[in-house]
Amino acid sequence: MTGEGKRRICLTVAYDGTRYNGWQYQPNGRTIEGEINGALCALAGEDIGVSGASRTDAGVHARCNYAVFDTKMRMPADKFAYALNQRLPEDIRVQKAGEVAMGWHPRKCRSIKTYEYRIVNREFPDPLDRLYAHFTYLQLDVQKMQEAARFLVGEHDFKSFCSIHTEAESTVRTVTGLSVGQRESVITVRISGTGFLYNMVRIIVGTLLEVGCGKYPPQRVKEILEACDRKESGPTAPARGLTLVSYRFLEDVPEVCACLKSLDG
Amino acid sequence: MTGEGKRRICLTVAYDGTRYNGWQYQPNGRTIEGEINGALCALAGEDIGVSGASRTDAGVHARCNYAVFDTKMRMPADKFAYALNQRLPEDIRVQKAGEVAMGWHPRKCRSIKTYEYRIVNREFPDPLDRLYAHFTYLQLDVQKMQEAARFLVGEHDFKSFCSIHTEAESTVRTVTGLSVGQRESVITVRISGTGFLYNMVRIIVGTLLEVGCGKYPPQRVKEILEACDRKESGPTAPARGLTLVSYRFLEDVPEVCACLKSLDG
Repeated sequence: MTGEGKRRICLTVAYDGTRYNGWQYQPNGRTIEGEINGALCALAGEDIGVSGASRTDAGVHARCNYAVFDTKMRMPADKFAYALNQRLPEDIRVQKAGEVAMGWHPRKCRSIKTYEYRIVNREFPDPLDRLYAHFTYLQLDVQKMQEAARFLVGEHDFKSFCSIHTEAESTVRTVTGLSVGQRESVITVRISGTGFLYNMVRIIVGTLLEVGCGKYPPQRVKEILEACDRKESGPTAPARGLTLVSYRFLEDVPEVCACLKSLDG
Repeated sequence: MTGEGKRRICLTVAYDGTRYNGWQYQPNGRTIEGEINGALCALAGEDIGVSGASRTDAGVHARCNYAVFDTKMRMPADKFAYALNQRLPEDIRVQKAGEVAMGWHPRKCRSIKTYEYRIVNREFPDPLDRLYAHFTYLQLDVQKMQEAARFLVGEHDFKSFCSIHTEAESTVRTVTGLSVGQRESVITVRISGTGFLYNMVRIIVGTLLEVGCGKYPPQRVKEILEACDRKESGPTAPARGLTLVSYRFLEDVPEVCACLKSLDG
């Protein structure tokens, strides 16, 4: 990948995950990575594969994910955004493109990722939010969800909040922020951290939902955390409510264009 | 329709208009009215047709539209919401159902309707808003749009802002409120009035877009209004950005359940 005359381009990508089997390429499934690779190959006339920052699950959305690829194409870096968007389906849109140092990769860079999980909480679903929010008619107590959320902030072993299918060596992670807010009938759980385990955000939300509807008292979340056992926590909340909304790098990005800092937050 | 033992039920309906040829029934097109009639017939086992309040155009969305129908079915009025939602596609949802007086019809009742038109104004489209907002990369001057909007508030002859295909006898209407706001890259035009002409909101927005991108000065809107000529105003803005967000009755609704007042605003 460090071939003669190549340079590395970093894309900022937003997508509606509804129709996709997640980010990661699958030979027989429609994925975000697969669509971007297809658009790149059509543009370059050669096989190019991107490497993504966050491998979002099937059905999860993103306002700000990153992908890098190496190419000999000489077009101005920012023009890749226009050229790829002409070739991508309308539920995937490159937001920015810029050149980065050849060795640079978003996954090697310390970062804070922020996810938002939206819950429509009223008697009947909102048809205008059916693709981007989870619906429940069970009346949720936001104050109790906020109380429960406080136990999860900081560095903890999140084994109870991780799919048993994880391949992670350590299940210790740092949640830098976790808030639960309400605006009219939409409850938004916003969670930030330096890294998340497989399904961690959705299991946290699934557990907060159990607290919100009164099945668990808020302090139960502390016990679940200490149990280090996936069987103790709530179900994995549905993917459609989840969006990766911000991805902020904590280090200077070498030779990176301003774009990488301008979209998050 | 005033048959023995019948009563009148009023539904509050929300829908994503993307897949539909508008509200009004068409024998060969998919419409909101057609879907609700289909669900009602499946429920009642007989032909029942609803009569709607606002006949929204193809592609236009609603958070709060009304429809009434007469039936001999004896189920508690509020249960019609559950029963119909089980039979409707997920992009149409009854929000409330209640019994009203037999002669009552939402179109015969003085009301204030409010529409919101959302515009995504940035370099590239937001894939998560592609169904519910119009996109333009032309940088819009919100202050100029606000200046132009002021000329349209009040009672005026809106002939310049009405499709030539109108069947209205008079083109005089009252706009009770018209605001243009911005939050991050989303500009929202919010317009309220006692009644609107065919395509009036979308032509107003199309004209404000011409002002926003600098093609017309704000005061041009006053001249357009005075010209009473559709050829003077801007293009009809695309349907996808438009949502009927509130529908408020100005008179007491006889025997109507509280629902009719609780959803708007």
